[in-house]
Amino acid sequence: MSKIKELREHFSSLTRLKYISNLLNWDLQVYMPDGSNEGRSELISLVGEITHKRLISKKTEDLISNAEKIDNLDLIDSAILREAKRQYEKAVKIPTELVVEIAKTATLGHKAWEKAREKSEFSIFLPYLEKMIELQKEYADLIDIGECRYDTLLDDFEPGATSKWVSSTFNELAPKLQKIVKKLDSSNDKPTQAVLKKYYDPEKQWEFSNEIIEKLGFDFDIGRQDKSVHPFTTSIASEDVRITTRIMENFLPGCLFGTIHECGHALYQMGLMEEIHSTNLADGCSLGFHESQSRLYENFLGRSKDFWNYWYPKLQNFFPENLKGYPMDEFYRSINTVERSLIRVEADEITYSLHIILRFEIERMIFEDKINIKELPQLWNEKMETLLSIEPPNDAEGILQDVHWSGGAFGYFPTYTLGNLYGAQIYNDAINSNPNLLDEFSQGNFSNLLSYLRKNVHQYGAIYQPRDLIKKITGKGLDPEYFTTYLKNKFYPIYKI
Amino acid sequence: MSKIKELREHFSSLTRLKYISNLLNWDLQVYMPDGSNEGRSELISLVGEITHKRLISKKTEDLISNAEKIDNLDLIDSAILREAKRQYEKAVKIPTELVVEIAKTATLGHKAWEKAREKSEFSIFLPYLEKMIELQKEYADLIDIGECRYDTLLDDFEPGATSKWVSSTFNELAPKLQKIVKKLDSSNDKPTQAVLKKYYDPEKQWEFSNEIIEKLGFDFDIGRQDKSVHPFTTSIASEDVRITTRIMENFLPGCLFGTIHECGHALYQMGLMEEIHSTNLADGCSLGFHESQSRLYENFLGRSKDFWNYWYPKLQNFFPENLKGYPMDEFYRSINTVERSLIRVEADEITYSLHIILRFEIERMIFEDKINIKELPQLWNEKMETLLSIEPPNDAEGILQDVHWSGGAFGYFPTYTLGNLYGAQIYNDAINSNPNLLDEFSQGNFSNLLSYLRKNVHQYGAIYQPRDLIKKITGKGLDPEYFTTYLKNKFYPIYKI
Repeated sequence: MSKIKELREHFSSLTRLKYISNLLNWDLQVYMPDGSNEGRSELISLVGEITHKRLISKKTEDLISNAEKIDNLDLIDSAILREAKRQYEKAVKIPTELVVEIAKTATLGHKAWEKAREKSEFSIFLPYLEKMIELQKEYADLIDIGECRYDTLLDDFEPGATSKWVSSTFNELAPKLQKIVKKLDSSNDKPTQAVLKKYYDPEKQWEFSNEIIEKLGFDFDIGRQDKSVHPFTTSIASEDVRITTRIMENFLPGCLFGTIHECGHALYQMGLMEEIHSTNLADGCSLGFHESQSRLYENFLGRSKDFWNYWYPKLQNFFPENLKGYPMDEFYRSINTVERSLIRVEADEITYSLHIILRFEIERMIFEDKINIKELPQLWNEKMETLLSIEPPNDAEGILQDVHWSGGAFGYFPTYTLGNLYGAQIYNDAINSNPNLLDEFSQGNFSNLLSYLRKNVHQYGAIYQPRDLIKKITGKGLDPEYFTTYLKNKFYPIYKI
Repeated sequence: MSKIKELREHFSSLTRLKYISNLLNWDLQVYMPDGSNEGRSELISLVGEITHKRLISKKTEDLISNAEKIDNLDLIDSAILREAKRQYEKAVKIPTELVVEIAKTATLGHKAWEKAREKSEFSIFLPYLEKMIELQKEYADLIDIGECRYDTLLDDFEPGATSKWVSSTFNELAPKLQKIVKKLDSSNDKPTQAVLKKYYDPEKQWEFSNEIIEKLGFDFDIGRQDKSVHPFTTSIASEDVRITTRIMENFLPGCLFGTIHECGHALYQMGLMEEIHSTNLADGCSLGFHESQSRLYENFLGRSKDFWNYWYPKLQNFFPENLKGYPMDEFYRSINTVERSLIRVEADEITYSLHIILRFEIERMIFEDKINIKELPQLWNEKMETLLSIEPPNDAEGILQDVHWSGGAFGYFPTYTLGNLYGAQIYNDAINSNPNLLDEFSQGNFSNLLSYLRKNVHQYGAIYQPRDLIKKITGKGLDPEYFTTYLKNKFYPIYKI
């Protein structure tokens, strides 16, 4: 076997171990009996241990240094080597004890966070959060990529992203978003969500959402949808991509847009070129890019007028008791209600990114040692006031709302907003290069959108890094202007401004 | 860590790898999308490879030889060491190439078998069967336990069983079974299955079968039931035991008794004592013993009059369109119809074992080189005539009906009948030691039966070997007389003899 083929195969076995771990997690969240937690966490740990040992082995080191001696690697093999080095070099820097300590703290921290949120008492979570932050600092100091600790953390989720770059991007974005929200505030004719909060039969919601994603290109021959408490997308092979949804009886958008969102992720995973299946490139090129696809489908497409020109009559047939005679235009406005609210996951397209910017700013301060962890709730509330002009009445609806920090996921939040920005820029390019696209949506034809995304984004998986891929697709680096222009063009008419 | 604890932990990791493999297989049969076969077989192979490497490692050898130096191991630790040696000593004797070759032949052979059965052409399957038999001979010659090749094959499924012993047991059994069948033939008042072949709503069949197993003690907090083409039981932890069923619209016994059968297997897995969870003892002590539990529940209990005294009125309420006014006694007779038939899996309690004895006799001849594989169909048909007085009209309903041989499972079939024999002997003891048991069944109380089985069988897992366990429970070795006595006492009255 050639040296590069050996490397490829070795890292493919690591990808397969990840798929196994994904199945263990999928099952845990979807079908596992309630009483089986302990046994399951043993299985997940075992796979993690085997993966880690294989990754930091002498064999990995040798395979990489042999592959590095090869001249003229092609595009895919160079990327395989690049990712192999990235994974290996990070992993060898971290002692096993630290990995174990982080996992342990995450488990305990998660429990403490749940209790703290239930009682709305930050102090219950505080010691675990402090511990986790110390461990993450240690982790970042050991790996030490970029100019500061937070660069290292970011890099795990968004390869190549730096604090400086994210910061300047968000600093440009925030005031523009605030300005749009303020303008919408001044409207005399605001939409409401009332029609969405009627009773919608769960069985029918399920059916309708499946009909939509099938039409969008979700391939049920290599994928499935199930129900879970927290919706997610996972891959158990490139030909086995699964999404989950959650159905709320009295809130139509939950299942509907949740399903379309996860479908966007799934289409990415389903669209990888065959040459990279099972390799270490068989994934999105970053979380931000992944989120660009889910948000493109959920928001740019899924909450557009063109989309509903086709789907609204069908939705009316599914739920005549709520929607017969209800005007399409009002429905379209209702699914695009903008509101300053407390909870990130419930936020609209515009204010969502303000929630993210808040978290990014706090995370940066934490890892620059600029804030005492005890004072986080106060800082949170102040920033809510500054960014969203709203004050959390308690910690449960403030700093305790998100699960991420309990598990040590710092540097993760920014990828949600990067996803919006990448998504807007790509969507703009898709429409410019396919002038009939919007008309096609009105006629229920979504295949050219998918072809565009397959050709420009999906097929490449992680061959390119995000900053290269966005340039390759759109001819320029990430520019938040596409997103804000999209928002203005869409929401001012909705708010009759 | 003590030496024995290290050994225990090492083999527990192998058990956990088996659980992971079980989940991959469960998912494959229950929820995996159709197009994901290739990716899945890669994952299953990877786990197999990791398991095999770990099992034949120097570490395993050292741990075993260290543990062997310890005096005074307690019951459980001695059994852990015994099983560790058993697994290790077999595995090291087999070169990896042979393992790979068998797996490859099994995959190709399975496809050829499917095609052969579809077309009813033995010649399509023949070359793969010949190859597989050669490989199994090689395997048996390398491991070389007991007095002949077939002893080695048997030992994989029924530890300690020998050809000689099985043969003498079956030689005693066969004429007795034939005699009973002949006697039933002479009846002037035979039951029929007509009432069972009406339309039974699949949803209601599902509901009813779940109600039954819950009452029998199946714990849905650490287990679940799903649907699959071939019903099976699997464990993904001692607290995660799953069964599947298949529902036929026009045949009530399929789902009903299938579910109770798998429930019997599941109760065994759910009843292991906590000290052996995740160890290499966390399973039944043999396939025969496992089958004793499934058949005890399916047949001895599930097709008994006492059982239906309680359940029949409920079944009538589920399906009044078929059963309202239909007498309980006739229903009881119909589920106990005995018929000489072609297909093993459709056979009744009595003729079933004649199908098994046929397979056992053929397998023995194969591995004693007493038959040319080309002549198997003829041999099969002759033995059908001798044992069951019935001649297969074609190979699909003859020698091609079972999947086992295509996968290399020779020595497996006898465990089905051993299960009947163990089951009858244990059931007899259960009733003798709990004189109220049958009355309890009539009142819907099945907990004392389960307590008896937990105490005497389930909790021990593989601590004891089958021949020791049957003695420990009943005070004597396996005696087919219990089974034939049970059959006579039950079936003569049903057939009004």
